Amino acid sequence: MPERTSAVNVYGANEQLPLAPYTSDHSRRWDMLMHYETLEARFSKINNLNHAVAMLSWDDAAVMPPGGGVARAEALATLNGVLHGELSAPEIADLIHATADEPLEAWQRANVREMERSFDAAMAVPADLVTAYSKATSICEQRWRQLRAANDFNGILPLLSEVVNLTRHRAQCLAEAKGLELYDALLDIYEPGLRQADVDPLFRVLLDFLPGCIDSILARQEPAIPIEGPFAEDRQANLGRVMMTRLGFDFEHGRLDVSHHPFCGGVPDDTRITTRYNENNFLESLFGVLHETGHALYEQGLPSLWRTQPVGGSGGMALHESQSLFMEMQVCRSPDFIAFAAPHIRDAFGGGNESAEWSADNLLQHVRKVGRGFIRVDADEATYPMHVILRYELEKALVAGNLDPADIPDAWNEKMQSYLGLDTEGNDADGCMQDVHWFSGAIGYFPTYTLGALAAAQLFKSAMEAIDDLPGLIAHGEFGSLVGWLRHQVHSQGRLLATGPLIEKITGEPLSAQAFKVHLESRYLD
Amino acid sequence: MPERTSAVNVYGANEQLPLAPYTSDHSRRWDMLMHYETLEARFSKINNLNHAVAMLSWDDAAVMPPGGGVARAEALATLNGVLHGELSAPEIADLIHATADEPLEAWQRANVREMERSFDAAMAVPADLVTAYSKATSICEQRWRQLRAANDFNGILPLLSEVVNLTRHRAQCLAEAKGLELYDALLDIYEPGLRQADVDPLFRVLLDFLPGCIDSILARQEPAIPIEGPFAEDRQANLGRVMMTRLGFDFEHGRLDVSHHPFCGGVPDDTRITTRYNENNFLESLFGVLHETGHALYEQGLPSLWRTQPVGGSGGMALHESQSLFMEMQVCRSPDFIAFAAPHIRDAFGGGNESAEWSADNLLQHVRKVGRGFIRVDADEATYPMHVILRYELEKALVAGNLDPADIPDAWNEKMQSYLGLDTEGNDADGCMQDVHWFSGAIGYFPTYTLGALAAAQLFKSAMEAIDDLPGLIAHGEFGSLVGWLRHQVHSQGRLLATGPLIEKITGEPLSAQAFKVHLESRYLD
Repeated sequence: MPERTSAVNVYGANEQLPLAPYTSDHSRRWDMLMHYETLEARFSKINNLNHAVAMLSWDDAAVMPPGGGVARAEALATLNGVLHGELSAPEIADLIHATADEPLEAWQRANVREMERSFDAAMAVPADLVTAYSKATSICEQRWRQLRAANDFNGILPLLSEVVNLTRHRAQCLAEAKGLELYDALLDIYEPGLRQADVDPLFRVLLDFLPGCIDSILARQEPAIPIEGPFAEDRQANLGRVMMTRLGFDFEHGRLDVSHHPFCGGVPDDTRITTRYNENNFLESLFGVLHETGHALYEQGLPSLWRTQPVGGSGGMALHESQSLFMEMQVCRSPDFIAFAAPHIRDAFGGGNESAEWSADNLLQHVRKVGRGFIRVDADEATYPMHVILRYELEKALVAGNLDPADIPDAWNEKMQSYLGLDTEGNDADGCMQDVHWFSGAIGYFPTYTLGALAAAQLFKSAMEAIDDLPGLIAHGEFGSLVGWLRHQVHSQGRLLATGPLIEKITGEPLSAQAFKVHLESRYLD
Repeated sequence: MPERTSAVNVYGANEQLPLAPYTSDHSRRWDMLMHYETLEARFSKINNLNHAVAMLSWDDAAVMPPGGGVARAEALATLNGVLHGELSAPEIADLIHATADEPLEAWQRANVREMERSFDAAMAVPADLVTAYSKATSICEQRWRQLRAANDFNGILPLLSEVVNLTRHRAQCLAEAKGLELYDALLDIYEPGLRQADVDPLFRVLLDFLPGCIDSILARQEPAIPIEGPFAEDRQANLGRVMMTRLGFDFEHGRLDVSHHPFCGGVPDDTRITTRYNENNFLESLFGVLHETGHALYEQGLPSLWRTQPVGGSGGMALHESQSLFMEMQVCRSPDFIAFAAPHIRDAFGGGNESAEWSADNLLQHVRKVGRGFIRVDADEATYPMHVILRYELEKALVAGNLDPADIPDAWNEKMQSYLGLDTEGNDADGCMQDVHWFSGAIGYFPTYTLGALAAAQLFKSAMEAIDDLPGLIAHGEFGSLVGWLRHQVHSQGRLLATGPLIEKITGEPLSAQAFKVHLESRYLD
């Protein structure tokens, strides 16, 4: 029992306790500080507002009842408006200018560069457009959840048209401010510095290589033994949590939940990934979780000393996707990982069953199955880029004004026939309505998936060279060295460098499709 | 399949789609509007910021991993700072002044009165104190969750002392601005217009009446037959959801979750209640859920036409508590409700068992058990006011500076011995650390619980007079008329009237302890 002073009758006391002074961050004397420190304080505030947006967005997707949608859209629009006001406060330009004479460390210079980047972007877009865009995308995304299920493209079309229209307005503002092409201005939001001129040749290589590669894989692929469900949701969730923990996900600073479309959200100190469970196929959710865990490890590994500052944030989405695909494709679909995971999988679902369908070999056949399918998120790593290139081409046309949103279903069908030999006519739910991106305003985002795949292959090649017997470690479920290497090379770097220079620094070569091609050939065609 | 125009090759097109204009709320010309409408727009924005605070607070209590706490406290402090800035913008005073000449409806006049109230309150407290208070209370509340479990009062004392200190600063600011006593200034936050001078005589009546009443009840109380657990959590949750639905809770606009301390949070369009499950006692969680459902029905029944405006919000916390206790105590602990609920309870846990412990009579004995216990939230309706009066007396002394936070455990023990004959020495977890309120800064809140109990009894008396055969309806699980009466009399009124005048308007009498005394005597001593 803690020690205490003896009891007193406090009510008879004549003397009152004095009121102690209080202190708060805001009572610091800013005039005594460098301009740089004033900027840091402003961007901490912006970071806190972003925290609110991130958490309300997670809530929206993971737990919000449908009837809360309109109020949530209004709240997010207001928050985005306030954020925009903070990011575009005219004093920021003066403060940034004034830091030129101040003695800053290298990371602080990079921080100022990132501040300037976000200030320029915010100044480029008027506040009423920011609010209109936030509201339109919230509402369209919410309706999409119902209308996709109903395969009702005409129902969502007016909302999508408004989102596309506002996105074009936004692109125009950004393009003028940055001196970029319209679509490049959108790419630049998701992957700073990335241009169509970088993407086109990489995608050209893939368009030349992949169709023949896919044919060859399909020709030699042997069928896996089916594994019959149902697989109870709670067992899938438990297995997912076990694997997350083994890979290094910190549950003191994060969660796993369910949402319509899997994602990694939240903030570095509270990273929230989601999945969805298919009772007939546990591998969908398991590999979804492994993928999002790659994203989450990146967030949780960001440099905590720069936590509230722009330079401490994650890099572009291509780099982010390289971290998820590094885990999912390079590590977890390897024979070594499956050797480690197979007993856990058997414990979860097979009841210790040692028969052929639960063997590591058969599980490997399952996680390496290649096939031409409708759904991007279910696609294997060989056909996935075809899904991305289709979307890249269509969204470029949408932004340029060469494709009317009403014509998306037909254009989609045409490309699917040409790239994957599949007909989506009348099946928009599995065609142009399958992804949340366009409906939530994320136009210019898709190419980062495939750039991430290329980067993942290139980074894994470097990891194999840097870490002794990496396959052996993976086969024993020892991920410490590997995650440590990622922490050191990628996560801890924040935004010191843009994605291109960072990849080149780590791997010694500019980003190319070479490692990815070699990876596909050695995994599927050797 | 939806109709579409025939396919076109969109890529050959030479003409680009024109960029359509966009509109947003912010592009309205405010100079054309009445000053009142400008105020409405400003308070809609404030409402949206409050939405964010409400949801982040729910998240904090219901789902946030512990490691997210520091970042969350920072985010909430920033949001509360932004809110404070919006609420205390100097233009609001001018706008409010200018509405005097504008033709407004009665509800709009009430809305302006509420705006002025919140403006005056915000102006009274400096921004740095608001931020410091927000941060200190977030951190203290988070630590309390761990330290209560560890029975470690000395551990929480520095954080609690800071919360008390900041609360006294806040009270001083508010007291000066409103011309009130320190503690009255805090009461006024939670129940506008309420003063110690109103509370003291009501509590005096209860202090005279209750000890003898409790003795009489205990003397004639017969023991219930124990109902043995365990009661699976999912079955408890299902039963809770069934009962919520029957009472009229709208799951399209709300959720039920788990938290350390049960509460009703969120916003009217997305009302979130929480409970906690005890595997050995399903009645705790069931009646917790019924209680919070009373709060939630109030929130969901607030006037949707005034949704974003202050006048459309809920009234003081005493009125709010009257709605939860109306449901829990007046309705759901009645023999009629138990007659309705017993078969559902047997289905959930008894496996159709018709033996004596599952009978409606025995269940009624359980839900009417009176006893002197340590824990306020587990207390029956007869002893509950003693818990509240104890806290009321201590928190008045804390605010006046007559009680040092370090002396709370001894003062608590002394009062518990005197009011309920129980010793809490060395058991702070079940003593002064049991409630979140002080640790989260809610000082001045406790009396509203007992005022709510008095109001609930007085309102239920009126409902009995207004609705034909109310007991019969309840016994058949028909709550439409009753909830309709509450919607009409209470929920739909928003903040048109303060709690006192509203109770008087509905019941024809000022709030008193009379109906509550009659209720206790007729339920327990007839």
